[in-house]
Amino acid sequence: MLSFTCDYNEGAHPKILEKLTMTNYEQTVGYGEDEYCKKAISLIKEKCKCKDIDVHFFVGGTQANLTVISAALRPHQGVVSATTGHINVHESGSIEATGHKVISIESKDGKITADGVQKVYDNHFNDGSPEHMVQPKLVYISNPTEIGTIYSKAELTALSETCRKNNLFLYMDGARLGYGLSSEENDLDLPTITKLCDAFYIGGTKVGALFGEALVITNNALKSDFRYILKQKGGMLAKGRLLGIQFITLLEDDLYFNMAKHADELAKLIKAACIKKGYSFLSESSTNQQFPIMPDSVLEKLKQNFQFSYWERIDEKFSAVRFCTSWATKKDDVLKLIAAIETV
Amino acid sequence: MLSFTCDYNEGAHPKILEKLTMTNYEQTVGYGEDEYCKKAISLIKEKCKCKDIDVHFFVGGTQANLTVISAALRPHQGVVSATTGHINVHESGSIEATGHKVISIESKDGKITADGVQKVYDNHFNDGSPEHMVQPKLVYISNPTEIGTIYSKAELTALSETCRKNNLFLYMDGARLGYGLSSEENDLDLPTITKLCDAFYIGGTKVGALFGEALVITNNALKSDFRYILKQKGGMLAKGRLLGIQFITLLEDDLYFNMAKHADELAKLIKAACIKKGYSFLSESSTNQQFPIMPDSVLEKLKQNFQFSYWERIDEKFSAVRFCTSWATKKDDVLKLIAAIETV
Amino acid sequence: MLSFTCDYNEGAHPKILEKLTMTNYEQTVGYGEDEYCKKAISLIKEKCKCKDIDVHFFVGGTQANLTVISAALRPHQGVVSATTGHINVHESGSIEATGHKVISIESKDGKITADGVQKVYDNHFNDGSPEHMVQPKLVYISNPTEIGTIYSKAELTALSETCRKNNLFLYMDGARLGYGLSSEENDLDLPTITKLCDAFYIGGTKVGALFGEALVITNNALKSDFRYILKQKGGMLAKGRLLGIQFITLLEDDLYFNMAKHADELAKLIKAACIKKGYSFLSESSTNQQFPIMPDSVLEKLKQNFQFSYWERIDEKFSAVRFCTSWATKKDDVLKLIAAIETV
Amino acid sequence: MLSFTCDYNEGAHPKILEKLTMTNYEQTVGYGEDEYCKKAISLIKEKCKCKDIDVHFFVGGTQANLTVISAALRPHQGVVSATTGHINVHESGSIEATGHKVISIESKDGKITADGVQKVYDNHFNDGSPEHMVQPKLVYISNPTEIGTIYSKAELTALSETCRKNNLFLYMDGARLGYGLSSEENDLDLPTITKLCDAFYIGGTKVGALFGEALVITNNALKSDFRYILKQKGGMLAKGRLLGIQFITLLEDDLYFNMAKHADELAKLIKAACIKKGYSFLSESSTNQQFPIMPDSVLEKLKQNFQFSYWERIDEKFSAVRFCTSWATKKDDVLKLIAAIETV
Repeated sequence: MLSFTCDYNEGAHPKILEKLTMTNYEQTVGYGEDEYCKKAISLIKEKCKCKDIDVHFFVGGTQANLTVISAALRPHQGVVSATTGHINVHESGSIEATGHKVISIESKDGKITADGVQKVYDNHFNDGSPEHMVQPKLVYISNPTEIGTIYSKAELTALSETCRKNNLFLYMDGARLGYGLSSEENDLDLPTITKLCDAFYIGGTKVGALFGEALVITNNALKSDFRYILKQKGGMLAKGRLLGIQFITLLEDDLYFNMAKHADELAKLIKAACIKKGYSFLSESSTNQQFPIMPDSVLEKLKQNFQFSYWERIDEKFSAVRFCTSWATKKDDVLKLIAAIETV
Repeated sequence: MLSFTCDYNEGAHPKILEKLTMTNYEQTVGYGEDEYCKKAISLIKEKCKCKDIDVHFFVGGTQANLTVISAALRPHQGVVSATTGHINVHESGSIEATGHKVISIESKDGKITADGVQKVYDNHFNDGSPEHMVQPKLVYISNPTEIGTIYSKAELTALSETCRKNNLFLYMDGARLGYGLSSEENDLDLPTITKLCDAFYIGGTKVGALFGEALVITNNALKSDFRYILKQKGGMLAKGRLLGIQFITLLEDDLYFNMAKHADELAKLIKAACIKKGYSFLSESSTNQQFPIMPDSVLEKLKQNFQFSYWERIDEKFSAVRFCTSWATKKDDVLKLIAAIETV
Repeated sequence: MLSFTCDYNEGAHPKILEKLTMTNYEQTVGYGEDEYCKKAISLIKEKCKCKDIDVHFFVGGTQANLTVISAALRPHQGVVSATTGHINVHESGSIEATGHKVISIESKDGKITADGVQKVYDNHFNDGSPEHMVQPKLVYISNPTEIGTIYSKAELTALSETCRKNNLFLYMDGARLGYGLSSEENDLDLPTITKLCDAFYIGGTKVGALFGEALVITNNALKSDFRYILKQKGGMLAKGRLLGIQFITLLEDDLYFNMAKHADELAKLIKAACIKKGYSFLSESSTNQQFPIMPDSVLEKLKQNFQFSYWERIDEKFSAVRFCTSWATKKDDVLKLIAAIETV
Repeated sequence: MLSFTCDYNEGAHPKILEKLTMTNYEQTVGYGEDEYCKKAISLIKEKCKCKDIDVHFFVGGTQANLTVISAALRPHQGVVSATTGHINVHESGSIEATGHKVISIESKDGKITADGVQKVYDNHFNDGSPEHMVQPKLVYISNPTEIGTIYSKAELTALSETCRKNNLFLYMDGARLGYGLSSEENDLDLPTITKLCDAFYIGGTKVGALFGEALVITNNALKSDFRYILKQKGGMLAKGRLLGIQFITLLEDDLYFNMAKHADELAKLIKAACIKKGYSFLSESSTNQQFPIMPDSVLEKLKQNFQFSYWERIDEKFSAVRFCTSWATKKDDVLKLIAAIETV
């Protein structure tokens, strides 16, 4: 049985384990203030081409999202998110648990637009009694989105301008950022994201690390006392070095982007096979997640040899599913899947 | 200038002020444990035809809603509400501030249905990983709704059965309950609501009191330690007698229902005048709030002599507005409004 | 049976009920934006001799405290309070429920000192890892304190200077402020408090109003978006006029201070009677609350004709109790109490 | 420079890295539902000699504490802790951030007693108005405590009985549990702790794991829907296998306890050297943390070759410091430290 269920089925790229083993007996200070974290931060500043950023490491994405948002908002402020946004559906109410409403915007492709944000803003502030409603203050986007789509430079620029005009923070959840930036259709890069967003994170867990997300804060207003809140929410890892070491390994020699590219290319093969069979897709994805809409009868047969995620029912006979590739996916296994798709 | 803006433009029914003045020098204990509160509770039990209920008094509705919901839910649980529900739009994120998500259901008439609730429930528990999502646990309805519609006995019964089958609490926000129960089209009453809901409140602020809402808890699971949370959220009035005295006055001789009936009847006159002119309505209301859709040009003229609430734009030339009546509205003033509607 | 249990046993000064009755049929806008609230705010600005303040009205003190503190603090910040502070013991964890720790300082007289605050501050910021601890940010004091003592101008000035030096907010809970400012031993006044505190409230509930506290915010950093949080916490009264009208009545002709003076003077008689009998006191109070330490046998006899609050056991034979006077206390009743104290 | 600063200066016991490397390419499901987690749970049930427990894995202790406490309490309930308790001082207000007060009890040895708990309970429930105060509901203890002391079986039994009699939960923070159970003076074991506590965790981070704490829930009332809250607070590790694999390694062949014993024995040597020099101690510790009180002049010299934690000033010339050993501490290094202590 081959699994294309998600991009965190395996451990981590072997170089990460090697590096952890190699440094195992060194004594370092705790809580992210060790030399490895410092070096990783320095590498991230290089990649972002910006020295004036703060970097904090997290073990996971939910933790990163809730800590950033909790640190950024006053009690009456809320987060604007696509209805499909991870914080809106799959984090068990983590944002609300810190006291804030997620103001959702309908979205078919998982993205939100500058216009959409402007409309939410106007609806709020043009009301005679805005204080009876939650005040929108931070815009949350995922890139790639939860359904594999990516923001173009033009889209992100427009969003950023709208946010700045209206004094809103723009925050990018980059759980799968590598897959986005390595996509053939991508025209964004880390320095541009650094310029356009107030904060974003470079996701490691889903891109070849054992775990780990590197949060980049670019807006000074969000930097103050961040470590207090990191600690309070349980996100400050005692042996912080584990995060520093992993991000050094990921960023040296572009391992991070190479792994992502590998996964994107394999996903493209799956996509092509589906197109060839005439299947449509839930979303236009050029990243490592593909969401073909396939006949239930075909899915039934594929299930005998392959694991993948059931996504949603489309109609009586068709369903959308997700095939996911990662650094660890082997081309041979993808070819087996493609053969099966073509023949069933 | 005559105002039909809302049902809390005036002070209170004069009998309430008389009773407060009459009892002013009596010494009572504080925090709702005085003899007046006890008597008011006893009257409410009579009206609900149920001895096995707990009653707590609040100064206002937002306070009541957030306290009940906070007391009822564990951290991972959320409230199901119509998108138009007061807690979803006009309480400044009060529910989220206590840590809970409002799971909204689209609704055109302000009501939510048994089917709608069942669907939300199924979507959650049929998912492979429900623990990644907020668990629906309490259903919030307003009766009358924010746009004046009311639940029929059949609708409320179906909703109640669905909630009980799925182990969900059903809570009714009765900010304008009097107007609902006094409506010509209503077939509900307090004993039925007591049987079908786990908690609800009898709204005083908008129905002739200076302020005050009487929360009725029927489900034993919601009764325990309620006064702690009432105090914690700032809802425990020091001179609790003020609430007891007001509810005694409202409930003796059915003053509460008589005032509501008066308002409903006047609203019906306004409705008839609008129908006569061929205007349609945002919602089918038989209560004290009417939402006619009128030409902007007509509204412009009415505004010269009357105040009312602008609700929402319908199209380029038409808008929905709200006319609201109350215990204090005079028939003469309504006739003036009608004459204006008919002639402009 | 005569009650000296607390200062909110009765309704309100009759002038308040008269004014409410007189204005009852006027139509006003809701939520504190009516003309009465505006006039009350204007009167408060006059009394404080400062135009650059924001004023918001609350129904009760717990509500005021939790709203101010929640609005002032970021998630990792806490409130410094005396162990006896109302927020630390008698508000059911209202502050913690908004996410913040109460950092308590031991205090024998209910007050906290500039030195005490400096020590808490230094302990925090001199630690190698302050981010592992709650950051002190706001100092909460009550004046008079929960045990009747008052701050001198010198004490409050020192506290204010220490707070400003260390970038801490100073907030005064003035639930019984009138009794403090009317005390013979007081050398503070509203303009001075306005200068020295970042926020404070003038308590009405315990000083002759039906209910109501007027919050004064002097520090611009605390003013922004306050009404959102007032609404969110359930503290925004629909018929805000009720608060405006009451504070107008209290402040016109100094009714507020005259009522407080009346109560303080009667309390002084009780104090003198206790001193004459050789009783010591739990605290040095010159305000309307007196805490004599009396033999249990004496208390047993007094209880037959008088109600008062049991405070705490001192030793096997002695207990501290509280006698409380108010605007409504009659001199004759105090004389009866004194006679009883002298003769038992 | 040799460091005795803490027990998480190094990576992890090499067997852990070996096992992670060995299993790296296996595909497993995420979020703690993989076969390794299941096996680890099964091993823990064996060690605890109890099948009827739930086990959940966390990355760190602050995360574990705040999740358990948040899951266990209703909004008005608080946690009883020693003033020195980790949650009371060194978790940045994490408990308050979930809405709950930490009710602290003074303690000289870091422990709390059955009598102390009973007193807190009685003070609360014997008050006339308990609902004005936070209700104590869960007792938090650390074993070993933050200053190295341990609970005897008799003490823990008494505490457990008091908690059960009063319907309080008893929760043990076992961040350093291994060192406690391996101490010469210990008479507790996992099955006894399982019987006496409602929940506790077996700490891995400070006892030789890369990271990880295994929470054991014994009380059914605390089990329901726990994974929702684990996810909501950001504590659910995507690659849950990393925790399962580590705990399998720790518990197989008693590696966990052997590492702890090694550390305790080395700490005992340090203790003996201090005693020999006539130094007293901040606490009576038989575990891996030793808190001698030494002259500042001596500390000044030791600092030239050794790192250790400054704890607190005792008087003008003496300070308490902490020397900490771990699985990774070498006997030779301890002998060097001892030689230095003996000769300076």
